[in-house]
Amino acid sequence: MHEFDYIRWLRQRTPAHPRVVVGPGDDCAVLRPSAAPLPSTFLPATPLLVKTDMLLEGCHFILEQAGGRRVGRKALAVNLSDIAAMGGRPVAAVVSVGLPRRNTQALAEELYAGMREMADAFDTAIVGGDTNAWDGGLVISVALLGDAGPQGPILRSGAKPGDWLLVTGPLGGSLLGKHLDFTPRVREALQLQEHAPIHAMIDISDGLAADVHHLCEESGCGAVLAADRIPISAAARQMNDNRTPLEHALGDGEDFELAFAAAPDDGRRLLGRQPIPGVTLAWIGECVAEPGLYLEENGQRRPLPATGYVHSFG
Amino acid sequence: MHEFDYIRWLRQRTPAHPRVVVGPGDDCAVLRPSAAPLPSTFLPATPLLVKTDMLLEGCHFILEQAGGRRVGRKALAVNLSDIAAMGGRPVAAVVSVGLPRRNTQALAEELYAGMREMADAFDTAIVGGDTNAWDGGLVISVALLGDAGPQGPILRSGAKPGDWLLVTGPLGGSLLGKHLDFTPRVREALQLQEHAPIHAMIDISDGLAADVHHLCEESGCGAVLAADRIPISAAARQMNDNRTPLEHALGDGEDFELAFAAAPDDGRRLLGRQPIPGVTLAWIGECVAEPGLYLEENGQRRPLPATGYVHSFG
Repeated sequence: MHEFDYIRWLRQRTPAHPRVVVGPGDDCAVLRPSAAPLPSTFLPATPLLVKTDMLLEGCHFILEQAGGRRVGRKALAVNLSDIAAMGGRPVAAVVSVGLPRRNTQALAEELYAGMREMADAFDTAIVGGDTNAWDGGLVISVALLGDAGPQGPILRSGAKPGDWLLVTGPLGGSLLGKHLDFTPRVREALQLQEHAPIHAMIDISDGLAADVHHLCEESGCGAVLAADRIPISAAARQMNDNRTPLEHALGDGEDFELAFAAAPDDGRRLLGRQPIPGVTLAWIGECVAEPGLYLEENGQRRPLPATGYVHSFG
Repeated sequence: MHEFDYIRWLRQRTPAHPRVVVGPGDDCAVLRPSAAPLPSTFLPATPLLVKTDMLLEGCHFILEQAGGRRVGRKALAVNLSDIAAMGGRPVAAVVSVGLPRRNTQALAEELYAGMREMADAFDTAIVGGDTNAWDGGLVISVALLGDAGPQGPILRSGAKPGDWLLVTGPLGGSLLGKHLDFTPRVREALQLQEHAPIHAMIDISDGLAADVHHLCEESGCGAVLAADRIPISAAARQMNDNRTPLEHALGDGEDFELAFAAAPDDGRRLLGRQPIPGVTLAWIGECVAEPGLYLEENGQRRPLPATGYVHSFG
């Protein structure tokens, strides 16, 4: 079963609810913070962001290779990345764990050390948990709450034809290590909001092509990516298989950089000033009215599958 | 590893955080709803309750016996029960699922049908999820958000020596079916608050003796339970093993009734009026200054292990 089919299925079955601003389908859900009737002129109540992500042994990590600390770190980091994708500030997490019945206590402590590291780095409280030992593999599920940032929740759906698309870093090859050791772009997403209105944003978890496709679908537009402008990571060039570095940059998941849409004038200013410490923002293309995803290479524009595979080109 | 050791370990390592009112160790965590500086005289901002619970195949259910719908139902219900134990109103849930690679889609839909049933019954939005297929057994983790009720978050820690202890229903033998089909006492906990100040409350998930023990430990008091006043369920009498019905009522987990402490005058009034439709409130004992858990039977008071086993009596 494909994850996105299930989310579409869920969305069709999710009735409206007075507290829900955004339901399933974006990086986080958005809730009204309280049912109390507030004089809206007085109180700018901060919308609440909610996200859950589960890591499963053998699926998202090899426990023997990664070690418990890095798994705990990643479990919190993937959720922090979704709060970043909404432009929010993380607040508190709850954690459920299913522990294999071998070295149970030591593993629990390693997981916690990794989560603590991430929690401390992003001022996030770990406020509860449910810990079980079972006969299966390691499974860890984090639910994270955050506050919307200064521009409110930044959705996937706000991009407009003509908007520029930018990313916060080079892409591809995260399997060589970044998928475990990345730092979620929470701070960068907050800093960005000081410099320009961000129309739409997503974190790159499924792969650049797939995630830009998600963003465009929600925004009701298309996108053209420029093959020679996609920033390619050193790891993408080190991958030793039958795919090109560009294909890795377009198709590999779990980069956890941010892709976002902004007005061309704002994009131009961001690229010129480069206001985010430690990050080189890169222009990768632009939104277009025609739905679909396209890659422009050597002056030719061709459809780009959301998998990022471009074998058929040339 | 014992769950409670881990929670104690966690609590010692949980730094103070400005948004956290109650961290790990109660039925739910309690958060301040927003960082915005509010004039406290003006706005009674509703504290936010947060809870997570994970169900694991073979641990909390036998999938072939229970079926997907009942597992989905239980996954939401156990979390709703914790919101009930704080006297709160559920608002929204996020759900992570690890699905075995057999009948994946059908199972996902059954799980959702069971969750939907509970969500609709308690006006709870399902706002997000993470769905994965893997080589392991079925695992489902729900994180639930709620608003504190009219008396604010009702903690485990508010019981006082002399308080009466009451429960919302007969206990024991939930393995015969109630552990899957119970209805969480959300409505009853809200109704209770209209009739009396509730000093402390807990849902009976580990067993009456264990959970009263938790409540007393948090309150810094002890409790004496009256053997001939514990309401014993029909299921507890049907259990066909070497334990007595009373031992089942004291020791069996997953009854998901509420145990609570109230002042004697209020307890007397609640017992006389029985104001909760469909529920017969029962007096089971009282809080005492001396720490520890005791059972009074035939005029004798003896220590009661938190397991509820009373074999050594007589």
